[in-house]
Amino acid sequence: MATTEIRIGGLGGQGVILCGTIIGKASSIYDHRHSVMIQSFGPEARGSSCSAQVMLADRPIGYPYVRRPDILVSMSNDACHKFLPEMKPDGILLYEEELVHLSDDERPARAWGIPATRFAEELGRRMVMNIVMVGFFAGVTGLVSREAAEAAVKDSVPKGTEPLNLQAFAKGYDYGRQLVEKAG
Amino acid sequence: MATTEIRIGGLGGQGVILCGTIIGKASSIYDHRHSVMIQSFGPEARGSSCSAQVMLADRPIGYPYVRRPDILVSMSNDACHKFLPEMKPDGILLYEEELVHLSDDERPARAWGIPATRFAEELGRRMVMNIVMVGFFAGVTGLVSREAAEAAVKDSVPKGTEPLNLQAFAKGYDYGRQLVEKAG
Repeated sequence: MATTEIRIGGLGGQGVILCGTIIGKASSIYDHRHSVMIQSFGPEARGSSCSAQVMLADRPIGYPYVRRPDILVSMSNDACHKFLPEMKPDGILLYEEELVHLSDDERPARAWGIPATRFAEELGRRMVMNIVMVGFFAGVTGLVSREAAEAAVKDSVPKGTEPLNLQAFAKGYDYGRQLVEKAG
Repeated sequence: MATTEIRIGGLGGQGVILCGTIIGKASSIYDHRHSVMIQSFGPEARGSSCSAQVMLADRPIGYPYVRRPDILVSMSNDACHKFLPEMKPDGILLYEEELVHLSDDERPARAWGIPATRFAEELGRRMVMNIVMVGFFAGVTGLVSREAAEAAVKDSVPKGTEPLNLQAFAKGYDYGRQLVEKAG
């Protein structure tokens, strides 16, 4: 696989950027691939929406903008509907299923939902929802190994919160693996 | 001014990325300019060094990589020596003067040093050194207004730490303004 383009979208405060950071770091730790993350702060970035572009590749990345995401991670309904039209037809949509509402027409062939906010609340901290999504990303796509992603989580969250965040990761990871296995 | 290329370099844990985030946000808040930040997580990013590329422009940014920085912000000696050769000849170097050691030959014409770590320690929290550097950046270059930068600081630091971080910003900003005024 030469290059994987990932778009992560959600609301400000949901931890969209940290989600991208962890995926980028994990890929780099995992197999020494190259990875780049872009945040835009331009007029399009004002307001409550927030998005990051992450690119994973086997060689240094010359053009880092994500044009046609292979993978779209959506933590809000607005972000999902904004970025879904850009996704490749065979791309993978990962979405927070209690926040994102998709009609049957809108739902792409490869779409996987997770009640990530509820899982985070069950762990006692709603704000680890983004780490549940990182786990879900790793579990469904296999693009980064569990070990690499866990190392990147530990490396990226505030000191003292590592155990909670690793639990959040495991919740998302296991749920993702189960969905994929059930689907065959 | 069409485009400003900024490279920020330092050690992991110094808050290099947050420094870039705040500058990018401030520019966007200030005058609705476009700004983009890139982090690389590739093999070159492993180890203790850390850098971010920030580009500020008047229109959407097609090629976001920083090639020849107009401004180099250096929080470590290694980062300074790594990126200084890339800086434009009339570029501005902003450096932590107790961590970065420059011979007279190495020092560019427009170089401004600040004891940012000491200032942060005087405020009781060494880790706000990066915010002192943000203030220094705003004070010396004037590329973002004080108001915009303060708004971006407030928006970007952990809840409850805003007053401390605004003090850190003010330390760097005032010191930078004074240096520039003294130099005429």
